[in-house]
Amino acid sequence: MKGLASEEDFIACIDRHFPNAHRHVVVGRGDDCAVLACPERLCVSTDLFIEDVHFRRSYFRPEEIGHKALAVNVSDVAAMGGVPLGFSLALMTPPGMTREYADALFAGMSGLAAAYGMVLTGGDLSRGGVLGLSITVWGEPVPGRRFLRRGGCRPDDVLFVVGSLGLARAGLCALEASGRDALRLYPEACAAHLTPNPQVSAGQLLARYPSVALMDLSDGLARDVPRLVGLDRDGGLGAALELHEDDLHDEVMAYAIANGLDPVEEAFAGGEDYALLGACPEDDFEALREEVQGVVRVGTVTADGLLTLNGLPPSNSGFDHFA
Amino acid sequence: MKGLASEEDFIACIDRHFPNAHRHVVVGRGDDCAVLACPERLCVSTDLFIEDVHFRRSYFRPEEIGHKALAVNVSDVAAMGGVPLGFSLALMTPPGMTREYADALFAGMSGLAAAYGMVLTGGDLSRGGVLGLSITVWGEPVPGRRFLRRGGCRPDDVLFVVGSLGLARAGLCALEASGRDALRLYPEACAAHLTPNPQVSAGQLLARYPSVALMDLSDGLARDVPRLVGLDRDGGLGAALELHEDDLHDEVMAYAIANGLDPVEEAFAGGEDYALLGACPEDDFEALREEVQGVVRVGTVTADGLLTLNGLPPSNSGFDHFA
Repeated sequence: MKGLASEEDFIACIDRHFPNAHRHVVVGRGDDCAVLACPERLCVSTDLFIEDVHFRRSYFRPEEIGHKALAVNVSDVAAMGGVPLGFSLALMTPPGMTREYADALFAGMSGLAAAYGMVLTGGDLSRGGVLGLSITVWGEPVPGRRFLRRGGCRPDDVLFVVGSLGLARAGLCALEASGRDALRLYPEACAAHLTPNPQVSAGQLLARYPSVALMDLSDGLARDVPRLVGLDRDGGLGAALELHEDDLHDEVMAYAIANGLDPVEEAFAGGEDYALLGACPEDDFEALREEVQGVVRVGTVTADGLLTLNGLPPSNSGFDHFA
Repeated sequence: MKGLASEEDFIACIDRHFPNAHRHVVVGRGDDCAVLACPERLCVSTDLFIEDVHFRRSYFRPEEIGHKALAVNVSDVAAMGGVPLGFSLALMTPPGMTREYADALFAGMSGLAAAYGMVLTGGDLSRGGVLGLSITVWGEPVPGRRFLRRGGCRPDDVLFVVGSLGLARAGLCALEASGRDALRLYPEACAAHLTPNPQVSAGQLLARYPSVALMDLSDGLARDVPRLVGLDRDGGLGAALELHEDDLHDEVMAYAIANGLDPVEEAFAGGEDYALLGACPEDDFEALREEVQGVVRVGTVTADGLLTLNGLPPSNSGFDHFA
């Protein structure tokens, strides 16, 4: 295997994987800045993806690291109901990273970028102690629509999700315990952790409903529902969540049962679901559920400033990458 | 000293230092994405700033780390002749980083951001083995002007710089040798390495001259002049550089003499000057030099595909962070 000798070497590798042209790009990679031809509104988000904090090289293939680093960013655009357009990449490489490894990483990333028609406009490279990726992603609104935001919930609004609750958590736990052998027992749970697919289409369909409040469900219901409804604010709203085993993915059930865990608590704690969490008035919910595949009702916004799970105070406070 | 317990703690610290409103921001920090009210053209750049690769905590104060991490990014907007507007920050924190340390880091960064009227729209936090910052910065053109690019040099164009050559390199070498004691002997050289000031005003004045090719001089003349003139391309142009001791900063001279180095070679090798390197037709040069303070002629674009320094092939190939 051949090492990566120079920055030029790396850039050539990037150029093989990522086209340097896009309808929204006037100047692509290779100058001090890229120049974007901008819509009136652009949404922007930045996420880190760091070895041994967000992923392990022991069971992530490089293609999966490249895919997921971009996917977790795109999920933020999906949560605005936006159309992803482009991104920049800051890549910190660990000692001894080979050209083959970089090539596979870029292949995974460019596959997802191509699926959404996103352009890589530039970035930076540096050596470092571990593999780390920082991506900044941007997108535009669906034509004629506005971005969806978190705020504006009202009591009696329906709370809903699009995507599987607790599936990525089951995958993470199984991969941590058994490495890639876990893929045989829990293929979809492992895939949810290794190669999550952001809910871009669902987000764009939801953008047709201006009454929807929406956010990226990445830290689990336990932590993200309070953020959506503003539970921590003075006079904030509350949420009565109803989660039932019938709504859970088979592998979440199987993993919980095999490990003596409560599947509903696992789904509630979640983490890295990269699902969408939303709220809307009851009057809009039926139409919305017919139009957007995979929408599942998970509860109701309340006026009491409390979070309950199936009528009781939850015992789990959720997922904190930073802690 | 108190440790940083949680992500919320960190975000509160950021909120104390960075206002969350700006004429170009519709949705600020706190949602999945920020939403920008965009000009027609936006320039975007991303840079990494990693401990023990780009800086050392042994002699950088946290204020200086915060300042420089943003400054090296703003320098890319300056090199487009642009007006910096905003940035996002991905911050990787080392074990045991205290609240006081983070506070000082954000103070240094917010000081520079305020000086340029830039808004921090969001970002991400993660623990990591070392302190690392990845910033994505964006800016707009000066009203009625276009961004300046690298390409389009012609034979006989004047090559010029704005900023000191080799001063940051002398500072880096002195700080590496003596730590902050170096500040007594080489205060301006150390400041050039610790707290570089991007040439934003000069870049914007240069944007009045559409004939100017411009780039960020961050890897030294030895590496950046070939990039400006396209020396590595088939049929690429060349450059005949003329650097004289009279043009060098006193501390570059003093450091070189004290350490048995050739001051001109040191200025040529440079690295992290965060100066501007430009080219323009001879006809525009006098007017430009009158208007833009600090412009110094350093040579001429040639048609021969060669790089020469005072008539001879250079012996130094310059500065490569990645190698």
